[in-house]
Amino acid sequence: MLIRGQSMRTIWTAAEGAVEIIDQTRLPHAVEIVRLAGLADAARAISDMQVRGAPLIGVTAAFGLALALRDDPSEAALGEAARRLAATRPTAVNLAWALARVSALVRRLPPSERAEAAMAEAQGMADQDVKTCRAIGEAGVGLIEAAAARKGGGRVEILTHCNAGWLACVDWGTALAPIYLARQRGIDVHVWVDETRPRNQGAALTAFELGQEGVAHTIIVDNAGGHLMQHGRVDLCLVGADRLTRTGDAANKIGTYLKALAAADNGVGFYVAAPASTIDWGLSDGVAEIPIEERDPAEVTHLGGERIAAPGSPAANFGFDVTPARLITGIVTERGVCAASEAGLASLFPEMAAA
Amino acid sequence: MLIRGQSMRTIWTAAEGAVEIIDQTRLPHAVEIVRLAGLADAARAISDMQVRGAPLIGVTAAFGLALALRDDPSEAALGEAARRLAATRPTAVNLAWALARVSALVRRLPPSERAEAAMAEAQGMADQDVKTCRAIGEAGVGLIEAAAARKGGGRVEILTHCNAGWLACVDWGTALAPIYLARQRGIDVHVWVDETRPRNQGAALTAFELGQEGVAHTIIVDNAGGHLMQHGRVDLCLVGADRLTRTGDAANKIGTYLKALAAADNGVGFYVAAPASTIDWGLSDGVAEIPIEERDPAEVTHLGGERIAAPGSPAANFGFDVTPARLITGIVTERGVCAASEAGLASLFPEMAAA
Repeated sequence: MLIRGQSMRTIWTAAEGAVEIIDQTRLPHAVEIVRLAGLADAARAISDMQVRGAPLIGVTAAFGLALALRDDPSEAALGEAARRLAATRPTAVNLAWALARVSALVRRLPPSERAEAAMAEAQGMADQDVKTCRAIGEAGVGLIEAAAARKGGGRVEILTHCNAGWLACVDWGTALAPIYLARQRGIDVHVWVDETRPRNQGAALTAFELGQEGVAHTIIVDNAGGHLMQHGRVDLCLVGADRLTRTGDAANKIGTYLKALAAADNGVGFYVAAPASTIDWGLSDGVAEIPIEERDPAEVTHLGGERIAAPGSPAANFGFDVTPARLITGIVTERGVCAASEAGLASLFPEMAAA
Repeated sequence: MLIRGQSMRTIWTAAEGAVEIIDQTRLPHAVEIVRLAGLADAARAISDMQVRGAPLIGVTAAFGLALALRDDPSEAALGEAARRLAATRPTAVNLAWALARVSALVRRLPPSERAEAAMAEAQGMADQDVKTCRAIGEAGVGLIEAAAARKGGGRVEILTHCNAGWLACVDWGTALAPIYLARQRGIDVHVWVDETRPRNQGAALTAFELGQEGVAHTIIVDNAGGHLMQHGRVDLCLVGADRLTRTGDAANKIGTYLKALAAADNGVGFYVAAPASTIDWGLSDGVAEIPIEERDPAEVTHLGGERIAAPGSPAANFGFDVTPARLITGIVTERGVCAASEAGLASLFPEMAAA
């Protein structure tokens, strides 16, 4: 996707074998490129949230392991590097998965071949993420085309929550991929961007992404979506997911459930876009079974280091909520759109459902 | 209610005939008393939002008119003062109502008696507001007592949105009045305080009020209420209202509708507390008929003068939304609790419903 008119990914290999990223802690106010020269840089990039978003964290960890092996390809160094990278964000599933995948691959090789193989594998994982996101876009753009057709070619109004865009992945994004494709196909789209308190990923990152790509958008507070839907100003909702149950319940950024309720109450389509790797086939009841991370209350009470809440008042900070499948119109995956149900997901991913 | 352990109102008469207020623009970080010596001070207090909340704005305007008449009780000065005060916040209904009431009263009197009569009338309006809010508290505390009984005396968890507390009135508040009474009666209550973006009245004012009164509370982002209700952590919701239709639809701070949807989806009681003066007997369809104010987008994109949103991205700022009566369990008024319906409101206020 574009930044200042130039096509970029969130992570790439640069001259002299280094890896480079966009420092997302500086967005939206500055676009700064950071070079990851070795393991320490990669670990810091993840722990300091210069990169964030589960897919991107996984790919960055894979590159980090490759950089570590370039300095020391021994078995001991491999184990130590994997441990250090795994500790950067202990809750991200993709992180452990990516480290295990690269480690298993290079352990079969002599030390002299490990760094190069790991770098190739990391690059392959990045390329695969791009393909998966692009496929989600292809699957989802039909929903936007259908909405445009229903409106006789009129502007399609889409509401999204948090950032499920290319900055959370390597390119394209999940919920935003269909929107980028729709725009490339000349469909008139406008996106209502939920601010997404407490970390404001919508106002800071989603709005930035859309602005750089020239997609019309308007930031709203998280409170506003219901009002817009009541007045017919949203044609469909498109959000990402952090985890899906096999039955189609979706854990996503806190507040997603409230928007799904408003969509159902007003007959607005509510779609969750996510790759198959997000599906947790072992779970069937999202509200009961998916653990919800509680984060630092200071994210609620403070902004930019300044306290915005009443002095002395405590706060609670729940990171995610679960939208029951009954409120989800469809799930947009790299293999197409399906019903938010066990049968729906199994129809697209029979080999995973059976495993 | 208490500030630093001392019982206060939001507005009162002080020595030498002056009127004093708490400067709410300084809350929650400082408690500063401002003296209103004349018309100019009163007008500025309203326009600069040193006082806010429809009931309090009305009472302040009445005091402002009394102060103006003390300096010049002539017919011309009365008209000029009323015009100036009316222009401070052109959308607040209580403001025009209060000015009309005091003006009508004093026009019947010789100039020499006007200032004293206006001051007495303003004081009477303030006292009446306190009585009305206290009566709303008496009507609503039964809901909290019932919830406590259902839980065998366990802690009652209440969710509120925005500030419908004593700082918006002269004392007690509307939605918070039942909570203060419950606490005085020894009921164990805890309040989930919605931050209430974009102006953060929950995090700044409601949390401050509750903290000063020693009511247990926790600030949450506006996104979190649905998650809490899904997990049985809210026993009832209590919110205020800016306008009610005769059919029980309620316009209130943007985001109220989303919480009402979550309450209905989880079987949680959702109550709107408001005095009869809030009922617009001429309206029957709140979503279609109640105009929703659009405010400055900078309230969304900036905080404390700093831009928090992506540069160049536009924002929209809807001040209120409408919760349909079907989602409201009951309306708490100064005459008791009734169903959110035409029959329910008419049963409590037959003389108004027939007018």
